[in-house]
Amino acid sequence: MATVAIVGAGVMGSALSFPLADNGHTVHLIGTHLDDDIIRQCQATRVHPRLQRQLPASVKPFFVTGLGQALDGVELVISGVSSPGVHWFARTVGPHLRPALPVLAVTKGLEATAEGDLRILPDVVADELPASLRGQVPIAAIGGPCIAGELAARRHSAVVFGSRRTEVLGRLAAFLQTSYYHVWQAKDVVGLEVCAAMKNAYALGVGLAAGLLERAGGPDGNAFMHNLAAALFAQAAVEMVQMVRLLGSSPEYVTGLPGVGDMFVTVQGGRTMRLGRLLGRGLTLDAARREMVGETLESVEIITTAGGALPRLIERGLVRPEDFPLLRFLYRVLHEGSPMAFPWEQFFAIVGLRRDG
Amino acid sequence: MATVAIVGAGVMGSALSFPLADNGHTVHLIGTHLDDDIIRQCQATRVHPRLQRQLPASVKPFFVTGLGQALDGVELVISGVSSPGVHWFARTVGPHLRPALPVLAVTKGLEATAEGDLRILPDVVADELPASLRGQVPIAAIGGPCIAGELAARRHSAVVFGSRRTEVLGRLAAFLQTSYYHVWQAKDVVGLEVCAAMKNAYALGVGLAAGLLERAGGPDGNAFMHNLAAALFAQAAVEMVQMVRLLGSSPEYVTGLPGVGDMFVTVQGGRTMRLGRLLGRGLTLDAARREMVGETLESVEIITTAGGALPRLIERGLVRPEDFPLLRFLYRVLHEGSPMAFPWEQFFAIVGLRRDG
Repeated sequence: MATVAIVGAGVMGSALSFPLADNGHTVHLIGTHLDDDIIRQCQATRVHPRLQRQLPASVKPFFVTGLGQALDGVELVISGVSSPGVHWFARTVGPHLRPALPVLAVTKGLEATAEGDLRILPDVVADELPASLRGQVPIAAIGGPCIAGELAARRHSAVVFGSRRTEVLGRLAAFLQTSYYHVWQAKDVVGLEVCAAMKNAYALGVGLAAGLLERAGGPDGNAFMHNLAAALFAQAAVEMVQMVRLLGSSPEYVTGLPGVGDMFVTVQGGRTMRLGRLLGRGLTLDAARREMVGETLESVEIITTAGGALPRLIERGLVRPEDFPLLRFLYRVLHEGSPMAFPWEQFFAIVGLRRDG
Repeated sequence: MATVAIVGAGVMGSALSFPLADNGHTVHLIGTHLDDDIIRQCQATRVHPRLQRQLPASVKPFFVTGLGQALDGVELVISGVSSPGVHWFARTVGPHLRPALPVLAVTKGLEATAEGDLRILPDVVADELPASLRGQVPIAAIGGPCIAGELAARRHSAVVFGSRRTEVLGRLAAFLQTSYYHVWQAKDVVGLEVCAAMKNAYALGVGLAAGLLERAGGPDGNAFMHNLAAALFAQAAVEMVQMVRLLGSSPEYVTGLPGVGDMFVTVQGGRTMRLGRLLGRGLTLDAARREMVGETLESVEIITTAGGALPRLIERGLVRPEDFPLLRFLYRVLHEGSPMAFPWEQFFAIVGLRRDG
């Protein structure tokens, strides 16, 4: 049995300690500089304050000041940082890595170059590692529908590990797979990561329906806004296909765990849906942020990044002006206070459907 | 403005009277022999008892005994019968049709031949029309996510009309499209109908997660069974792709309104989810049926039909024994009292994912 480091003591990173511990591994749970309170409570009570669950006995919590010691001799490093933290991870954790030591990341997001090219985060991390390690650290990512609190409760969860270095995936799966944590291995890490990132953008769109329902005074008899939510969910799937193709991959994961599966679980609740509800009720982004102080809003990051890249990509002829109508709408809702007039006439065009009038 | 007949006064057929009336059409809402109580109440109170909503002024309710009179001079016939009613529709309404009078059907389902070949319902109806009309009545179908009660409340609803006779679709859309009922036109009626039918089968699967959650004593802290539900939703999408291909069509509608969109709205509630919950709690199909007396269980019909056809299709080499693991599991749950041991190792195989151990 091995020692595994989890860097970042948020809910998702910390939840992965459960299958690792159940497989007999020792886990070093290392907080970032933002996680000191969490680590303090884990050390004092053995209960993770955000998961509200007792950590397995083989989990040892570390402050970020103990990073070097905690990474010594580990056989796997899991990155549990959120998307703004990937540069910190590469620069701070990177110097402690060694060739062939695999990194498995839960972080979801995309970054855009000045030219509007979108990049998956494992590639961003790889490029920022110390020069001596570049190309020698296998970086893998986790996609698929997994609410951290359910994993920590040992509920059935089905996920996908992907990497450009597919030869490490079997070993990573063996570390984590249990009777309740089901792991598939994906060859196409780009398709996997695009789905993982974009689902947060589009879940915000689905969440708007809940806010519009509240604004309309709540359910009218048996009538909610499920038809609207479902239409937005469907358009989201269509645009995920477009986005995976834009990044040069094949869209088959959209129809499966990484795409519609992950988006389905994301719209069951949580921060992204709460923000969507607030915006749907008519709040501006600034006003909604004030209701959600202290929360990481990854949906805002990804809509801003991917939606913000579209004009440059259109200029370059890589995207047609009529593509991604829902993403463009969400960008306008966030940044231009656009009213909730959905661009229906632009939806569903790419699947060979036609709309009159 | 025209007169349109809706045959079948269930919730979905009746709800279509709202956009029709809003477009200025006169609507003859004709109950089947099963709808006498509904028609009686509509005539007496103008309120549809199952939609619990007042009918528009231009809707005239008719008993089935007035069928011939009610169909006289109409320019469109909408079939609102449920799947077991399609033969009744063809035999009873068929003789009142005339060449070029289009039929638009809301009925979802598939039928199987003795050889296991699955057929879409518009083709079943077409074959049973009177010989003098065969091939001369354009039959179209509606797919996509649309809860009837929300349509009747004039909530945004986005749907797809499809037909082998694509030249009639523009005219059908013009009858029904409003500012809240958004209609797309699909060339591929087979893909559309396979999605519409199979979503009821797979929604039952997603519903099992709710029953398993109850059996486990309800939420454990913040942990529901959303990860499980999402995994089943994702596998459902994968199998919809398989099923559309099996019937010879292209699977692109799965990623859109007819597939994941319709399945998303179906799992928000209703009969299919209720049955799934009961089965997930451990009830047999017979026991669950006793809790749902009088309800049409289209999910049972489609799982029985499509799941029951698989052995013959496997014998004939048209389906591999490992295909459709979730559909086969659902068939065993219904008809063999199979325990809730999900065949995880068989899931997600067709999308190029690999699973060890």
